[in-house]
Amino acid sequence: MKTAVKQRTYQGEQTHKEILKAAIDIASAEGLEGLTIGRLAGELKMSKSGLFAHFGSKEELQLATVEAAREIFVQEVITPSFPIERGLPRLQSMLEAWVSYMEKSLFKGGCFFAAVSAEFDSRPGPVRDRIVALIKSWLDTLEDEVREAQSRSQLNMRIDPAQVGCEVHAVVQEANRAYQLLRDRRAFDRARQAIRWAIESAAVSVTPRVAN
Amino acid sequence: MKTAVKQRTYQGEQTHKEILKAAIDIASAEGLEGLTIGRLAGELKMSKSGLFAHFGSKEELQLATVEAAREIFVQEVITPSFPIERGLPRLQSMLEAWVSYMEKSLFKGGCFFAAVSAEFDSRPGPVRDRIVALIKSWLDTLEDEVREAQSRSQLNMRIDPAQVGCEVHAVVQEANRAYQLLRDRRAFDRARQAIRWAIESAAVSVTPRVAN
Repeated sequence: MKTAVKQRTYQGEQTHKEILKAAIDIASAEGLEGLTIGRLAGELKMSKSGLFAHFGSKEELQLATVEAAREIFVQEVITPSFPIERGLPRLQSMLEAWVSYMEKSLFKGGCFFAAVSAEFDSRPGPVRDRIVALIKSWLDTLEDEVREAQSRSQLNMRIDPAQVGCEVHAVVQEANRAYQLLRDRRAFDRARQAIRWAIESAAVSVTPRVAN
Repeated sequence: MKTAVKQRTYQGEQTHKEILKAAIDIASAEGLEGLTIGRLAGELKMSKSGLFAHFGSKEELQLATVEAAREIFVQEVITPSFPIERGLPRLQSMLEAWVSYMEKSLFKGGCFFAAVSAEFDSRPGPVRDRIVALIKSWLDTLEDEVREAQSRSQLNMRIDPAQVGCEVHAVVQEANRAYQLLRDRRAFDRARQAIRWAIESAAVSVTPRVAN
């Protein structure tokens, strides 16, 4: 009996994960507001009542989708950098993982957080609060690694960590946008070059962007 | 009689303009998909039939809203730079006008094009096509001015104009996002600093970002 119960639980978890994967896909392309239980039921060919067993309300489904997207982001972008030495090497490793992750275009509409943060910036409530907290935490992680690199004399102490953080954040977001709108794959290498330059120019000893 | 007709036409144009100003406001915050004739009629306290006289369909209303936003953008960001000398001065003037325009937050949800491009990147059709064409044309304008600056020996010939174009575009978009999400007004000065640095580092003779 115990095994059967365990198996059902495992299957339940798998279904839950598959539902959320489909939810991220829909939300990345059509927004979290378009993510109704009816829309999701149609996509998954499941009954609405079956979905209600997993998520009691649209907001609960939206929040669960944000959490599922966060888990994938952490797993693809942050965790692989844990074994890397802190400071500049870890900063570069996280940024390269982030660009590669965007480049793989895992979700139908590209970066989930880019899509839903533009959608929810003017919609107060718990969904917006959660999205804002996650984006802030990612910006803080980047800034913190810049600070660590400064304390290890890898980056110039006089550079503002928030400035470097916002510049590298900006160029990766730009790559996602350029690819989603213009289907220009060169956007990812431009982001890599811009990151390289934003970091090199903040190094303790600066070399020119191009030879004069 | 002629005067009366003229006046009615002028009034009609004013009403049309006011409707579109309200439409841009709604779309900047809630998206172009949320911009139904019913929603707009409620906001303006007009009858739906009155609005139908102006726009025959939701798509026509969406396209007219995009055009109205384009006109405001051109008037605020591009036209003031026409008297400025071409090349680096005009590039800097357009970018400063763009940051100031974002900083003024003319519309409820911030930058109209940032909001609707994220919303429509995965929605094929004439509205997406028009948004993409306008964003591409703005990126081309920036690139073109970088090229002009190169031909005037103000920027290094070995810099890729598309690279500088995407970097400056990225940081202004980032400022809008940071302000809309985190309400951090420092975002605009960070964009200015990033622009200064992206341009200075592409100059014919590079000076370090900070003194070593």
